[in-house]
Formats: sequence, structure tokens, C-alpha cells
Amino acid sequence: MDTFTPTPISKVKRHPERGAYDRDTVYAILDAGLVCHVGYALGDQPLVTPTIHWREADRLYWHGSAASRMLETLAAGVKACVTVTIVDGLVVARSAFTHSMNYRSAMVFGTARLLETREAKLQALQHLIDRLYPGRWANLRAPLEKEIKATSVIAMPIAEASAKIRKGPPLDYDYDMGEKVWGGVIPLALTPGAPVADPKNLPGIAMPEMFARYALPR
Amino acid sequence: MDTFTPTPISKVKRHPERGAYDRDTVYAILDAGLVCHVGYALGDQPLVTPTIHWREADRLYWHGSAASRMLETLAAGVKACVTVTIVDGLVVARSAFTHSMNYRSAMVFGTARLLETREAKLQALQHLIDRLYPGRWANLRAPLEKEIKATSVIAMPIAEASAKIRKGPPLDYDYDMGEKVWGGVIPLALTPGAPVADPKNLPGIAMPEMFARYALPR
Repeated sequence: MDTFTPTPISKVKRHPERGAYDRDTVYAILDAGLVCHVGYALGDQPLVTPTIHWREADRLYWHGSAASRMLETLAAGVKACVTVTIVDGLVVARSAFTHSMNYRSAMVFGTARLLETREAKLQALQHLIDRLYPGRWANLRAPLEKEIKATSVIAMPIAEASAKIRKGPPLDYDYDMGEKVWGGVIPLALTPGAPVADPKNLPGIAMPEMFARYALPR
Repeated sequence: MDTFTPTPISKVKRHPERGAYDRDTVYAILDAGLVCHVGYALGDQPLVTPTIHWREADRLYWHGSAASRMLETLAAGVKACVTVTIVDGLVVARSAFTHSMNYRSAMVFGTARLLETREAKLQALQHLIDRLYPGRWANLRAPLEKEIKATSVIAMPIAEASAKIRKGPPLDYDYDMGEKVWGGVIPLALTPGAPVADPKNLPGIAMPEMFARYALPR
């Protein structure tokens, strides 16, 4: 199945022309986003927790302390909604109400499951490290059993999903095009700065080239 | 009251030393974040919607179409959790499990209310525009009645809140400090690029200085 079927929960209602349901579009946003916001409910109390995520095939992953309330609640089988939002720009328009933002967001729905085996957890965590820092896992010491035990990993099969994307210039009304007001877009992007070496680094340890010109996953 | 009282819902359990409950800290994160993630539940189905927000005193604001399901649901008085997350950097460590991120996040809890009067809505929307583009509201044409009617504005009194902040270098174990592996931080920030003028701008309309060297709210 290459496209998710929109339901009343996932269908983009406002600006439906900005909605998309194909896996390629949804997954590209999940993969380009550095953090997600995990939504779940404890009774009638919603909670939204930010965390780093990664994806493999049709599953979304995140992790945390084995003692985490979020992971414990989700592992019990409650529904989750996980949203990834990438801000691409501010849209400056000719009237107050046509100001907007350019963005890509993906909302995915499902029921989370804890990875049970040591091997599944290790493989998933390797994917997390290597998504951000290709090849780094192999250059680190082996994980300790206590580290593996203290870490829970969630895998959520993506049951349903939608994307919403706005791009391009302001969309002003014809009757405003004569306003003597500048319109345009201020692009925004999460941008790496110059790495800051830990003062505790051993003498002679050089910064790997990957960090000197770090590029976020896309 | 200068500090929120942590409850089982808002208390930072994992890494409690990273938690903060004073208004100054929480509000500084809300004010520096460009978008928030609004969490609410439709029955047992959680939903997490990204949107732009702003704050005045002890209220968090966001807006949308008067036809929005999110706003309609929230206006009916269901509980909301709104989270603002600012990513400050990637923390590269000496072992896989000590890799981390630097971030500032704020979770605020409350029950949303729709602004009822035309005047309250207009004043709030002016604050939104002027938060991002100081002084711009006064240079735009007056809002049309149909625009005001089509827009709903939420004001949520902040009943409870917490912040969580990680900063600084990797926190590796003493027994890993001899690993011949580079540790450090790759700073990350949402950064404005060169503005892109709308090709439909009138001839002779200059880009305001504010956009040429745009600075996000802090």
C-alpha cells in the first residue's frame, strides 16, 4: 500500500490542498525531522512529550528510560499520535490575515509496542546513532548490559498518517495586490553551527570530518 | 505566584535536575519558540496539532479557522497540553548511550477558551503579528469583518507548567574518559535565510529593514 487512506482522524480538513497521504511524502518528513512530539492520554489528560525519533520501513521508533511514564503508558497499549513539524519559513503578506508559515508536518497514528529482545533494542539504537552520525556506532565501545536494560525502545507500526505542507509565496487576495506593502518569504532552517569540542577530550583526538561539516538528516 | 507547583502530571521525573517550574523560565521558552504542539483527545484518540502561538501574561494563545476541529474540540472545554520545544544542539559523546541533545522545552496545561468579542480577537491577533514583525500591524490595511469572523482565537490560562532544559557538553562516565573518541556539541539553531521577495510585489516597494536582517523572537 503506497498511500494511507484518510479517515476522519487523519484527513486534512483545513486547506485540504495542502494534505498528502502517500508514504513517500509522509516518510520524507519523518526522516527529515530531528524531533517528534508524542501525544497520548492518561485518562482525560493529554500529554505531549518531545523526543528524538527514527523510522524503519513502516515503523516509527523512539526511546527513553525504562522508568519513563510516557513509555510505560504507551507500552500498555494506549493510542498515540506522533507529530513531526519542520518549519521552512515565515510568509509575510499584504494583509494581517494572509500572513502564514511555510512548513512540512506529518501526523502518524498507531499503538506503540516495546521492543522485547536485547537484539532488537540494540539494532534499533544503532539505527538511531547511525541516522544522525553515519558509521559512528561501529567506532564506539560495546554497550553495557546495564545500559541496554535501562533503555526502553518503542516501535510503533504506522497505522494511519497524513502530511500537510505549505510552501511558496504569500497568497494574497486580488483586491490587496495594490497595497503598497512588501510581501515575501523569510526562509528558516535548523542550521548547525561550529562544533564545540568537549574540554575533556583526550589530547590529540581530532574532530571527525563528519562533525566539522555536519549535515542534518534529510 | 512566581513558580508553578509541580503535580504528578507536570513534574519532571526523568533527569529532575533538568526541570524548572518558575514562570520566568517557562515563559522564556514559550516566547522563544516559534511553534507549539497542541495535544488534546477526541475520546481515547490523542491528537497533536502544530501551530503558531503567542503569550500574554499567564495566557497562551493560538488561532485557526473558525471551522477547525481542533479549536471546536478545545473550545468545548477539554483539557489541553501544549508543548514548545527548542532544539539547541546535538551532544556527541564517548559511548552510544550518553549521546544526547541540548534543548529547552516547556509543557503547559490548561483548558482552552475561545475569545468571544471582536475587540479581544483583534487585539490578540495584533499581538501575534507584532510578536513576529514589530510594528507591522499598523502598516497593514484594516482587517475585514469577514476575516475576523472566519478566525477563532484560543486563550488558554496556564494552570500548570514545567520546563526541561539540557545544555552543555556530553556527560560521560569516568570509566569512558580514556576512550579515544571525540566528544562535543554541534550547536543547532533555527536560522533565517535571505528573504525571497514575492514576484508580485509592486514596483518600487522596498524590503523593510526588519526583514533584511530578520531576527526571530527570543
